[in-house]
Amino acid sequence: MTYNTVIALDAMGGDNAPGEIVKGAVEAINARKDIKIHFFGDKEKIEAELSKYQYDADQTEITHTTEEISCDEAPAMAIKKKKDSSLVVGLKSVKAGECDAFISAGSSGAVLVGGQVLVGKCKGVKRAPLAPLVPTEKGISLLIDCGANVDARPEHLVQFAQMGSIYMENVVGIKKPKVAIVNIGAEEAKGNALVKETYPLLKECKNINFVGSIEARDIPKGDVDVIVTEAFVGNVILKLEEGLASTLIGVVKKGMMSSLRGKIGGLLVKPSLKKTLKTFDASEHGGAPLLGLRGLVVKIHGSSTAKETKNAILQCVSFKEAKINEKIMEHLTPETEQADA
Amino acid sequence: MTYNTVIALDAMGGDNAPGEIVKGAVEAINARKDIKIHFFGDKEKIEAELSKYQYDADQTEITHTTEEISCDEAPAMAIKKKKDSSLVVGLKSVKAGECDAFISAGSSGAVLVGGQVLVGKCKGVKRAPLAPLVPTEKGISLLIDCGANVDARPEHLVQFAQMGSIYMENVVGIKKPKVAIVNIGAEEAKGNALVKETYPLLKECKNINFVGSIEARDIPKGDVDVIVTEAFVGNVILKLEEGLASTLIGVVKKGMMSSLRGKIGGLLVKPSLKKTLKTFDASEHGGAPLLGLRGLVVKIHGSSTAKETKNAILQCVSFKEAKINEKIMEHLTPETEQADA
Repeated sequence: MTYNTVIALDAMGGDNAPGEIVKGAVEAINARKDIKIHFFGDKEKIEAELSKYQYDADQTEITHTTEEISCDEAPAMAIKKKKDSSLVVGLKSVKAGECDAFISAGSSGAVLVGGQVLVGKCKGVKRAPLAPLVPTEKGISLLIDCGANVDARPEHLVQFAQMGSIYMENVVGIKKPKVAIVNIGAEEAKGNALVKETYPLLKECKNINFVGSIEARDIPKGDVDVIVTEAFVGNVILKLEEGLASTLIGVVKKGMMSSLRGKIGGLLVKPSLKKTLKTFDASEHGGAPLLGLRGLVVKIHGSSTAKETKNAILQCVSFKEAKINEKIMEHLTPETEQADA
Repeated sequence: MTYNTVIALDAMGGDNAPGEIVKGAVEAINARKDIKIHFFGDKEKIEAELSKYQYDADQTEITHTTEEISCDEAPAMAIKKKKDSSLVVGLKSVKAGECDAFISAGSSGAVLVGGQVLVGKCKGVKRAPLAPLVPTEKGISLLIDCGANVDARPEHLVQFAQMGSIYMENVVGIKKPKVAIVNIGAEEAKGNALVKETYPLLKECKNINFVGSIEARDIPKGDVDVIVTEAFVGNVILKLEEGLASTLIGVVKKGMMSSLRGKIGGLLVKPSLKKTLKTFDASEHGGAPLLGLRGLVVKIHGSSTAKETKNAILQCVSFKEAKINEKIMEHLTPETEQADA
């Protein structure tokens, strides 16, 4: 049987591998009969995990690998040396066209570097941005780029805006997604050299719905769908949101526990708080795609559980079904060139 | 009588001017007999506010001004045109040496531009950074630079680190303050071009206690005292902290109100929550100084009340007493040059 989407899954990456990763994969294949999961990793360990569940074995395949890349290793070096790692062999299966997408909860650096080096960029794509969905008051926004490609140029940011729009429209289902550039003031004249040069290019760009600048304080409100910035600033935004949310929640909990009255109240508010904070839980929204590659590469959080793994798999299916890469090449490649994917 | 510190106060700037500004000033002079407040603004309005309180009139002086700069005006143009505004006349009194410090809750841009243009930089200072104290889990950190001088060079960041250290040691009272540079990873090899060039310079710098890189997710933890970054990133960090904290608190409140159980619990946790969130209230920590000028210029929040005004005044007194400017010039000026302040 041929499958709609074949996902290469790094069974060895992340804090909860292979247990939660395999569990998430089984949940995904039990939800969709038209997809196949190709596991990369220690065959014996993967089979031991799989034996715990009921599923259609035809929907799985395992390629045994003998090495693992840890988060402490220098990414470029690790990819070069550990040729039989789950990450390298898995990425190569996408390059070879055997799999449509690759998902890993392993080293971010290795996924970013490996994606670009081993899978390669779509024709016309200058840089492959990492574009996580960040939780907001109203839902989710795409923050593009949070990757390892710092010191971007204006033309890169324009492509990020285009790729981000295509993703939000076709995978997340938002019509004419609003695009804004991160800035330190609302006016066009504000900003650093990069933003000042990029702003008019975004304004001219016909295939996006550019709404202007966004100040960092307005990002959590969720009024904008695609938030464009270069990778250094994007990384700062992503990490600060994570850090501040966890610090504030810790501080609130500690505050409640400081008095008997607070403790009782804390027990009462717990269920509603839990529900609310779920809105701000990144694992609800799948992983961060590395856009503009010849196959989809998705980085999920190192602490990912079965739920995030499953969500990321289903996200990849939507990506494939929506023909995102074809759309990206259509929008970014000059008409005279032939897309060669 | 001569006073230890004379503060020029913009009585017309901010959402609560002149009422809360004048009230804060009266609280400050009633707390310290050795300081004087020089008000700039509409004399009649200031006198009307002052008449509500008991205080030693010798500790006050009013210079009547007829114009005000609003937050909507382009800063450089406003400063040039509105020569009789409270902001321009007040800043000039610092330049003339009549006042030691200037405080305003008015337009950030006008304070930043006016401070540099009208007061002028200390000899040896390349750029005057805006350095707010940001609340953390453990207390406060100095975030330097959050100003309007984007696209900084490595030598600017080194001076920011030095000025920030002097401030934290002498005004806030932290011995050998820990200095870190905002980065997207902990290793020296990480970062954009600016950070990679600056890192070794900070490492070599003998008069600071440089501890390496800090990732944005660790900023709220408060392990570091001086957080060095260029203004664009600093502004993003400052605004995102503001925005995310207010969004999360709003979401938590809404969550509690969504059920009866939550409502009752909410009432019980309110006092402890309020106390805890006070730790994260920037107004507790005075204003943001613009460092490296020939007099201190402090920007306080547009929504400042009497409390923040008073705290900012007392912060200026510490600044003057600690001879920060002399120390900055000592540390930054080559030995052969004479400090000329």
